Amino acid sequence: MSETNSHQAYDALAERFRRISLLGDAEGMLHWDYAAIMPEGGANARAEQLAELGAISHGILTADETGDLIARATDEAPDLTDWQVANLNEISKKYRRAHALNEEFVTTMARAKSVCEQAWRQARAASDFTLIEPTLSPLLDLVREEAQRIGDALELDPLDALMDAFEPGARQANVDPVFAELKGFLPEFLESVLAKQQAEPDIIRPEGPFPIDIQRDVGLKFMETLGFDFSRGRLDVSHHPFCGGIPDDVRITTRYDENDFTSALMGVIHETGHALYEQGLPADWRLQPVGNALGMSMHESQSLLMEMQVCRSQAFLEYAIPIIRDAFNGSGPAWETENLIRLYHQVSRSFIRVDADEVTYPLHVIVRYTLEKQIISGDLKTSDIPAAWNQTFEDLVGVKIPDDANGVLQDIHWYDGGFGYFPTYTLGAMTAAQIYQSAQTTMPNVELEISTGNFSSLVGWLRENIHSQGRKLSTNDLLTQATGRPLETAPFLNHLKSRYLPS
Amino acid sequence: MSETNSHQAYDALAERFRRISLLGDAEGMLHWDYAAIMPEGGANARAEQLAELGAISHGILTADETGDLIARATDEAPDLTDWQVANLNEISKKYRRAHALNEEFVTTMARAKSVCEQAWRQARAASDFTLIEPTLSPLLDLVREEAQRIGDALELDPLDALMDAFEPGARQANVDPVFAELKGFLPEFLESVLAKQQAEPDIIRPEGPFPIDIQRDVGLKFMETLGFDFSRGRLDVSHHPFCGGIPDDVRITTRYDENDFTSALMGVIHETGHALYEQGLPADWRLQPVGNALGMSMHESQSLLMEMQVCRSQAFLEYAIPIIRDAFNGSGPAWETENLIRLYHQVSRSFIRVDADEVTYPLHVIVRYTLEKQIISGDLKTSDIPAAWNQTFEDLVGVKIPDDANGVLQDIHWYDGGFGYFPTYTLGAMTAAQIYQSAQTTMPNVELEISTGNFSSLVGWLRENIHSQGRKLSTNDLLTQATGRPLETAPFLNHLKSRYLPS
Repeated sequence: MSETNSHQAYDALAERFRRISLLGDAEGMLHWDYAAIMPEGGANARAEQLAELGAISHGILTADETGDLIARATDEAPDLTDWQVANLNEISKKYRRAHALNEEFVTTMARAKSVCEQAWRQARAASDFTLIEPTLSPLLDLVREEAQRIGDALELDPLDALMDAFEPGARQANVDPVFAELKGFLPEFLESVLAKQQAEPDIIRPEGPFPIDIQRDVGLKFMETLGFDFSRGRLDVSHHPFCGGIPDDVRITTRYDENDFTSALMGVIHETGHALYEQGLPADWRLQPVGNALGMSMHESQSLLMEMQVCRSQAFLEYAIPIIRDAFNGSGPAWETENLIRLYHQVSRSFIRVDADEVTYPLHVIVRYTLEKQIISGDLKTSDIPAAWNQTFEDLVGVKIPDDANGVLQDIHWYDGGFGYFPTYTLGAMTAAQIYQSAQTTMPNVELEISTGNFSSLVGWLRENIHSQGRKLSTNDLLTQATGRPLETAPFLNHLKSRYLPS
Repeated sequence: MSETNSHQAYDALAERFRRISLLGDAEGMLHWDYAAIMPEGGANARAEQLAELGAISHGILTADETGDLIARATDEAPDLTDWQVANLNEISKKYRRAHALNEEFVTTMARAKSVCEQAWRQARAASDFTLIEPTLSPLLDLVREEAQRIGDALELDPLDALMDAFEPGARQANVDPVFAELKGFLPEFLESVLAKQQAEPDIIRPEGPFPIDIQRDVGLKFMETLGFDFSRGRLDVSHHPFCGGIPDDVRITTRYDENDFTSALMGVIHETGHALYEQGLPADWRLQPVGNALGMSMHESQSLLMEMQVCRSQAFLEYAIPIIRDAFNGSGPAWETENLIRLYHQVSRSFIRVDADEVTYPLHVIVRYTLEKQIISGDLKTSDIPAAWNQTFEDLVGVKIPDDANGVLQDIHWYDGGFGYFPTYTLGAMTAAQIYQSAQTTMPNVELEISTGNFSSLVGWLRENIHSQGRKLSTNDLLTQATGRPLETAPFLNHLKSRYLPS
């Protein structure tokens, strides 16, 4: 660095975060390997490798020199570009967040999570919440303490501090009114959709088996259609589908069911939406925090835009179904386009969130969000959680929870200390609708193009307006810049109405 | 650590090397991924990740604290076990080796290697050594300097210092007489073998195509037969087959040719020999230098023992060929056991080392070793290397080199600065023969067992006598302990005689 450089501290800081990013990227690849292809015997060694890499990057992040450089770089702000300032803000937030929790607390928390996660497996198997109460209660105390400490460090309300980890800028003050609108609209809407669908002829499921290599080929074909860059990514298999790796080597996974091609196929499309975001991140800002994707709601918006807004649309399904039918040599009534579209648009009340369709999914999320507010505030005692879950669920979704395994014990997140995370799904679904509406307004031909398998305009628009922006703006500012408005319910509700209750 | 611990410094040192090992293991997995499955777009990012991990572990290795701890741990030697003392010696040697070259030299060397490697690709394509002379000469100066510096640090002759990096303890004083015996025996023996084989009926090659999924299944079947633990490893594909990963997650690769099943199959068996060594290393010493495998000649002995000594034997081929024939539905004269055994035992004079059979391979190695001695001593000018190669090759192998591409330019190692490496192949082949001879002496039924696909006694013996010993002893001491004698040529020459010129 030359002596006339007016942002030496910033440069030194960026170099530190380049190293942290490289370590994180190495962790990302090793985690993908663990989930997708590692033989089981490698598990302990892999855990130790990941722990060591994590410890090294945590050491660089929390070092006193990092704090000093942040302070000095802040003084250099007048000489920094907008991107550099945004990068510095990201760096500063990471540093403050890491310092909010001391090592003793982190160790205690990790142990409590691990114990509770084990207990959850047993409690779910027995479908008995009381089995987990003794380990969940102390974990919830720690979660509340964590929320308080991070909240203090970032000057945020405790639950906001937790939400902010998953989606920067997500605040109850913004989420509450939006969720209230959904809560006011969806239960009655769901009734009407179900009544309409029940009046229609029965949906016929195509009968398998559907060979996995054909499912894979079809998935790869649609990835190509959507614009996935195979020179910078792969499709593999894992138990829980995910999008991992790094922007120049995005690893998406799916899970195949020989008796049902629909789930893996839409899963691949969903993960491709995530992957396009990663592949479209600003190359100039690789390995810097500002060059990363925004939080989980923006990420989920990109997957749900592709899956829910675009690829489950009448326009795309009319293009895609003949391709799928040909691949599997399908024939007969089950394979008629009209029938398969209705299959892809089927709505039902279900107990399990991950199986839910896009109409009921937000209700599952609101149940959890309602309870999370009470749990983090301390208003809801641990022992009262199942009853509160069952009542809230019945009020919103309209069915009675039969047992804990189908209710409060159904997924791991709370028992692994994950709070503030669920809202991002529904925020993402709404964001997806709002972004796609804007894209359609700007490019009136986009739906026509999609109906011929041409995604170039749409993906080009997303790259320019969303992907290439990294974390330069907050989620809400980026959404406002891209669509002209902050997050609203109207595009999402209009989407649901036109798809499920067309007039 | 308690205050009464009498080897605190050793323990602290071991913890440092546990961290270095974890970083190295992470690098190993990322390198496997790079070679086996990474999309090309990930190359730059991967190189940066590997460089960062390398820099961090180099930093820990060369830190002053490491040197201080080594000095203090050496004083604790009376309180250390044999394994701990051996570990401390390994650690100390790594430290001295790392300190022998300063950062400037390492950077200069890396640049010279990279430039010369590029030039080699062009020179080989043009089959013209003069194209590479201007970049090879300065690289050779650096190699000589490196050899001198490391030799000074380890109190070794320069070429010994280079060889020691590939096989600890390998010295010209031991290699020279052994290679002299081979040189005295092999050329005439080769003549006799060729004369015998030419007098026999022509070998008929089975005609393909041989579907890759069947080749893969057969390979997996033989891996299982040999005792590969699939809960701790995988088989995949890469351009250059290798054995990578870590002891609890060994990743071997092969390369398939649809028109020839023999190379991939023997390749898989070869890499399985390497893998069994890794999987059999002492679990108690994971992540410590003494828990690693010995050098390349011992490693190659394990692959060559499986491939050359065992799986190309008449006894095993009579068991294996019917399995292979069934897998490919083979029939006719080409598939007769007798014909295929002769195919697997075919000997020929070839220009290219990697295509050579076990009779001619040592001659290829001795050509290189002869020239390496002269290059490192400075007796051979760069411009004289091709002529020296061609003459030595013709003297030993008995054919005239037609051009540089088939001669001195055929492989990359010298042009990547790799000297001292080639002898390990032939040392490995001799070690394999000596070890297998001992195993047979101890277990007279071992060949009979192998003829039924039962490898348990053999692998059990190797685990006990070789694999589980890690680096507790030097290569020669381990060989002496396992076989009762230091390395000798007799077992290897007897093996060649009984296979290729049975009386």
